[in-house]
Amino acid sequence: MSIRVGIFGYGNLGRGVECAIRQNRDMELVAVFTRRDPSSVKLLTDGVAVYSADSVEKMTDAIDVMILCGGSATDLPVQTPALARHFIVVDSFDTHAKIPVHFANVDAAAREGGKLAMISVGWDPGMFSLNRLYASAILPEGQDYTFWGKGVSQGHSDAIRRIAGVVDAKQYTIPVKSALDAVRSGAAPVLTTGEKHIRECFVVAEEGADLARIEKEIKTMPNYFADYQTTVHFITAEELRRDHSGIPHGGFVIRSGKTGMNGEHSHIIEYSLKLDSNPEFTASVIVAYARAAYRMYNEGQRGCKTVFDVPPAYLSPKSAEELRHDLL
Amino acid sequence: MSIRVGIFGYGNLGRGVECAIRQNRDMELVAVFTRRDPSSVKLLTDGVAVYSADSVEKMTDAIDVMILCGGSATDLPVQTPALARHFIVVDSFDTHAKIPVHFANVDAAAREGGKLAMISVGWDPGMFSLNRLYASAILPEGQDYTFWGKGVSQGHSDAIRRIAGVVDAKQYTIPVKSALDAVRSGAAPVLTTGEKHIRECFVVAEEGADLARIEKEIKTMPNYFADYQTTVHFITAEELRRDHSGIPHGGFVIRSGKTGMNGEHSHIIEYSLKLDSNPEFTASVIVAYARAAYRMYNEGQRGCKTVFDVPPAYLSPKSAEELRHDLL
Repeated sequence: MSIRVGIFGYGNLGRGVECAIRQNRDMELVAVFTRRDPSSVKLLTDGVAVYSADSVEKMTDAIDVMILCGGSATDLPVQTPALARHFIVVDSFDTHAKIPVHFANVDAAAREGGKLAMISVGWDPGMFSLNRLYASAILPEGQDYTFWGKGVSQGHSDAIRRIAGVVDAKQYTIPVKSALDAVRSGAAPVLTTGEKHIRECFVVAEEGADLARIEKEIKTMPNYFADYQTTVHFITAEELRRDHSGIPHGGFVIRSGKTGMNGEHSHIIEYSLKLDSNPEFTASVIVAYARAAYRMYNEGQRGCKTVFDVPPAYLSPKSAEELRHDLL
Repeated sequence: MSIRVGIFGYGNLGRGVECAIRQNRDMELVAVFTRRDPSSVKLLTDGVAVYSADSVEKMTDAIDVMILCGGSATDLPVQTPALARHFIVVDSFDTHAKIPVHFANVDAAAREGGKLAMISVGWDPGMFSLNRLYASAILPEGQDYTFWGKGVSQGHSDAIRRIAGVVDAKQYTIPVKSALDAVRSGAAPVLTTGEKHIRECFVVAEEGADLARIEKEIKTMPNYFADYQTTVHFITAEELRRDHSGIPHGGFVIRSGKTGMNGEHSHIIEYSLKLDSNPEFTASVIVAYARAAYRMYNEGQRGCKTVFDVPPAYLSPKSAEELRHDLL
């Protein structure tokens, strides 16, 4: 019997989830819910129904796990608690600073509804968080480093697009090689986010726009760019389409730690991702955790969970015996 | 209240566990058990008792978790089931092919005694296994690659020492750079263990020994060296002591996978370790899992477990709230 999955919100992430479900034979996509006119939404998969988001509560019996694919800024803070009353849910809430509040809201809702909810699933938060946890538990005396990139930052690209005279833009976050090398050497340097990353911007400007002014506005923008080494390239709309239409991302989580009676031995634990498609990879992580959420619910677990609470075996369709034989 | 830990077997791994416990404030080493004359064993820590292995069953009330530090060939297959009847135990059984049998024996013993046992904890099996599991669950369509090294292989060093005319030897397993690069490129090559690794041997020969014969015996040794690109360096006992006395190790677990409707996007997940001291790092992993074993037992879990069964949060001394706030 397949795990029957619903997708709530059908953008890049929703399409990624749709693709990921096809790679998992024990899962089946049964419906997509949208706030748009359902008749205007064309899925990649034939034979799957598209419903209005308003009608979701009628579908509680037809769906085992609902995957929420909305944004963290305004969608998920409302949608996840609302749906956690009625469904086993998984979301990818990624505003790190607001996770404790989101957790509390979702936990209360899920417990009220007698359901299980899994929040902040993806790669950061998600796999990167897991690796920070594993590495710090193993090497208590050490330092953690997270580097992002090379990849497209949606928030930073949007910030550039809001500048007068900018038609379109794409911003890449790139780890600083010398900082990565210093961390890998075990030297345990103290590094700010700005010392760890370069920001490279590809900007399409309006004809006749003051390029020097745009470049200055980008480079001096507080929080987003001012603290970073930032480069700006003006290109044509055609070049942007041709060379920068992908959504790659990735990064590195490194822990450098010491062991021995006097810290005489150094160790480096490194986890890295190199992703052609950020939303498709995030979706792939979410789908594996949807399986785990379903299993944990069926075992009687309730309330809000995160990747920290999930026994790894629950992510795989293989049996415990197969896992021990094949992968241990 | 600290978790009271016992160490059963006091070699390199036992000393590593002793050091690791000092880095974890919620744990306390209460006793070491040895098959040697206890009066002949000098610990690194003052004030900790050394007892004869025979007297271990008298200590069931004084010890919360017993960490077994014997070898996988002959010690652990006997010791882990025997002790799992009386203690929460953790071992680092690392003979991959025999894990299912070991699991069954330990599971039966632990259930008989109403205890919990955690087997095959370390980095391979252990952290590498976890990364194989996570990555394959996330990217179902893909290939796994495990590379070992650069590091000292004890088994291969021992094999060289058994050759006539050899006084001492150290063998390093080294990943083949071009194979690593091919895997990281997403090309998904098919590679044998021999194509992924080089074996470099440092050998101290008896005076007047036939070096050409020794080199040939090494390079043609079935299973150990014949299928690998092997280099042999003859050095003096003094050089071996000076340059090759450490026990470094490490390696890489890489999964290369595809997502999208037609597998159009590639992703690389890579986990790597660079370890100055193999036994101290293994011990650090074991000590974190000893904490988890104790918690799982106190929750009512019984029988044999592996790293696949452990919710990551259980490894850390931090609370669930702290973990979500600090690391998610």
